[in-house]
Amino acid sequence: MPVKVFLNEDEMPRQWYNLAADLPTPLNPPLGPDGNPVTPDQLAPVFPMNLIEQEVSTERWIDIPEGILELLVRWRPTPLHRAVYLEKALGTPAKIYYKNESVSPAGSHKPNTAVAQAWYNKEFGIKKLVTETGAGQWGSALSFATSLLGLECKVFMVRISFDQKPGRKLMMQTWGGTCVASPSNETQAGRDILARNPDTPGSLGIAISEAIEEAVSDQSNTTRYSLGSVLNLVMLHQTIIGLESKKQLKKFGEDRVDVVIGCAGGGSNFAGLAFPFVHDKINGAEIDIIPVEPFSCPTMTKAPFVYDHGDTAKMTPLLPMYSLGHDFVPPPIHAGGLRYHGMAPLVSQAILEGLLTPKAIHQLECYKAAVLFAKTEGIIVAPETSHAIAAVIREAEKAGEEGKEKVILFNMSGHGLMDLNGYDRYFHGELHDYELPAEEIQRAEDALKDLPKPNMAKTGKW
Amino acid sequence: MPVKVFLNEDEMPRQWYNLAADLPTPLNPPLGPDGNPVTPDQLAPVFPMNLIEQEVSTERWIDIPEGILELLVRWRPTPLHRAVYLEKALGTPAKIYYKNESVSPAGSHKPNTAVAQAWYNKEFGIKKLVTETGAGQWGSALSFATSLLGLECKVFMVRISFDQKPGRKLMMQTWGGTCVASPSNETQAGRDILARNPDTPGSLGIAISEAIEEAVSDQSNTTRYSLGSVLNLVMLHQTIIGLESKKQLKKFGEDRVDVVIGCAGGGSNFAGLAFPFVHDKINGAEIDIIPVEPFSCPTMTKAPFVYDHGDTAKMTPLLPMYSLGHDFVPPPIHAGGLRYHGMAPLVSQAILEGLLTPKAIHQLECYKAAVLFAKTEGIIVAPETSHAIAAVIREAEKAGEEGKEKVILFNMSGHGLMDLNGYDRYFHGELHDYELPAEEIQRAEDALKDLPKPNMAKTGKW
Repeated sequence: MPVKVFLNEDEMPRQWYNLAADLPTPLNPPLGPDGNPVTPDQLAPVFPMNLIEQEVSTERWIDIPEGILELLVRWRPTPLHRAVYLEKALGTPAKIYYKNESVSPAGSHKPNTAVAQAWYNKEFGIKKLVTETGAGQWGSALSFATSLLGLECKVFMVRISFDQKPGRKLMMQTWGGTCVASPSNETQAGRDILARNPDTPGSLGIAISEAIEEAVSDQSNTTRYSLGSVLNLVMLHQTIIGLESKKQLKKFGEDRVDVVIGCAGGGSNFAGLAFPFVHDKINGAEIDIIPVEPFSCPTMTKAPFVYDHGDTAKMTPLLPMYSLGHDFVPPPIHAGGLRYHGMAPLVSQAILEGLLTPKAIHQLECYKAAVLFAKTEGIIVAPETSHAIAAVIREAEKAGEEGKEKVILFNMSGHGLMDLNGYDRYFHGELHDYELPAEEIQRAEDALKDLPKPNMAKTGKW
Repeated sequence: MPVKVFLNEDEMPRQWYNLAADLPTPLNPPLGPDGNPVTPDQLAPVFPMNLIEQEVSTERWIDIPEGILELLVRWRPTPLHRAVYLEKALGTPAKIYYKNESVSPAGSHKPNTAVAQAWYNKEFGIKKLVTETGAGQWGSALSFATSLLGLECKVFMVRISFDQKPGRKLMMQTWGGTCVASPSNETQAGRDILARNPDTPGSLGIAISEAIEEAVSDQSNTTRYSLGSVLNLVMLHQTIIGLESKKQLKKFGEDRVDVVIGCAGGGSNFAGLAFPFVHDKINGAEIDIIPVEPFSCPTMTKAPFVYDHGDTAKMTPLLPMYSLGHDFVPPPIHAGGLRYHGMAPLVSQAILEGLLTPKAIHQLECYKAAVLFAKTEGIIVAPETSHAIAAVIREAEKAGEEGKEKVILFNMSGHGLMDLNGYDRYFHGELHDYELPAEEIQRAEDALKDLPKPNMAKTGKW
């Protein structure tokens, strides 16, 4: 029996799947500063027009351009593994499969959209991309992608990660990217925050503000901003993960899947694996689809569904999403990629529709799960990914209690080789669980109460 | 045209190739303290008998046990890539292929022999393995392997790497291995050296002495020593790399290869790729087979072929090999895996026979090559691997001058994500080239002159 299945390059999906085409209730539109839906022209200084068109598309299947396929085959299709050793350690009747996105040169799923965004920008005549990064996964993925295409790249990295994770910064540098700590003195947004709080550790919201400011202030109009999560187009580009997984599950002889799991910060690795299965669910399949977040940043499980900005300085349009508030600063857990105040509008809408069942898990349970995974399957995963594994273990144990041979699929979204510090602190008993106090949630709701309200209509079908 | 080729698990080689069966002149035997060939019984406290038998085997093809195949398929077969983007950047008529050993959970080729050695030890009833590690690739690979098989693992890590590369130590820890800085106070060999030189940065030779001492002093007789290079059996286990590559080259449509390249410290990743092609060369194929070493530790290109110890404290038998002397401490270059005073006897003998054409390259040329590789092929390689890439670039340029469409194959033996510090120093202009003075070579020859001399007979055929 094989423990993993490859696909040949010619078996790689040729189209992305767009959930926006199938959502029972259409997405609320992003709103501009005037409270009206944002027009493509308003977004033009930030994104190239070809990506803006993709962001609002409701076509179900979107062709992957040949030029992007040529970039993706450098590391795709990625393997699908069966976790036979984890199954054995758990003594579960469940069959556990995982998609291994850690084999990309940047070590995670992030290059799937990085190469696509860099390619579309280059097609549009753009010379330079600016972005932000938290733990560094996204910044290194975009530096990798721009390097392959000969674009310039600048990354604003949240200061605390910049200081604690020199490895990620060096990856960006090796691929030719420029990485600066955020808040920086290079933007008005950064200078304002430093003036108020010179010792701030920074946040993703602040870094986004700086990156957008730098992108839109380029006088030559050949610089744009790039975002590694949240946007519809990012979810779209990541669906290649789930589409490959479906073909590979067939090769394993599986004709159904019962549970699909991914960790969710902004939502992209989860959506990438899950959305093709959400499509099946909408069409009648019985599947539990579970995005997993940390208890310390419980966007999906505790926050309100609202209109909110994606960044601290309120430079982005208002997006319809679950949000803890654009000025929320989550407690310092090691899964930096899960410390975002909002959630992708497509994921948020699918939750509202009842298509997804979000779960929150504490970080100690996640590290325990990750160590078991390392000792059984042999792979050291990223702290973000450990949240998916903890949920998988719970589901496998549940399958045992129910005596069911369930098929569980999860996204092994990245390796943890640049994040070993968290494991070290875990082994030394220095990590703790954080639960956000109810007052914090209330504070978030209060802070957002004067903003427009999204339409919360749902079909109530799931 | 595909840029990489996988194999299915059922296409994985079922046998290792043993060059000892085909060498025109047989290997000189290892010698014991009395100057006579070492007997299996003398080695029994150090290695399990099943591995001792494998070490001296002259069978050409050796079956890979089913239990080891089951461990290898966790990440094998590894992909073979065509470096189309590097070719384009070089404007070469050559076709460049590379075997990607970086996709293993430990990030290098080392797990190929780690899982095999751990499996044979477990079969023999051993409960614990002890080893040494330089840069940390081997120590993490053995920790990974013992974790999968439920054995204990202890690693003596050269102090300077222990301090500079906390990531590798944390990988070992995550897999359940124990890692201590060498020299340590835990062995007589370590205490002796610390007494003489409390601030020593350590060396691979010292760490080997400590590991052997700890292994042989276990009163319960269930601990053995494990070595990640140099030994015949290690070369044997690594030949799966070259055997897979042959099948994959055929799938790429290649019916010949002109140049085979690998970096060589102790020799194992080079031998793993190259020996199956040395077999073809012995049988008439025209192939340039090139092991590459740093100019600062020029074992193959400048050192004498002698009998010498594998470690500083002279605990190992005398091995017939090119050696700079067992007390040689190489200058501090970043490719820690290439800082070994000797060279595997099988590789040494093949050089003596004229089957291989070793080359030495300076570290700045290697880093330049690695950065070009990162920006074209997208993968950040280990500092060791950069030596192979520098040699590939030279060969590709030569093919251009000659106007020949040569087929070049090299071993991409590991990623550099745990070794980014070297890249950082390279970018900051802090690295220098070292060339070993002729007096040092003379000193090595003088120091070894009272030891027995190996038989230097050769067929002179190549």
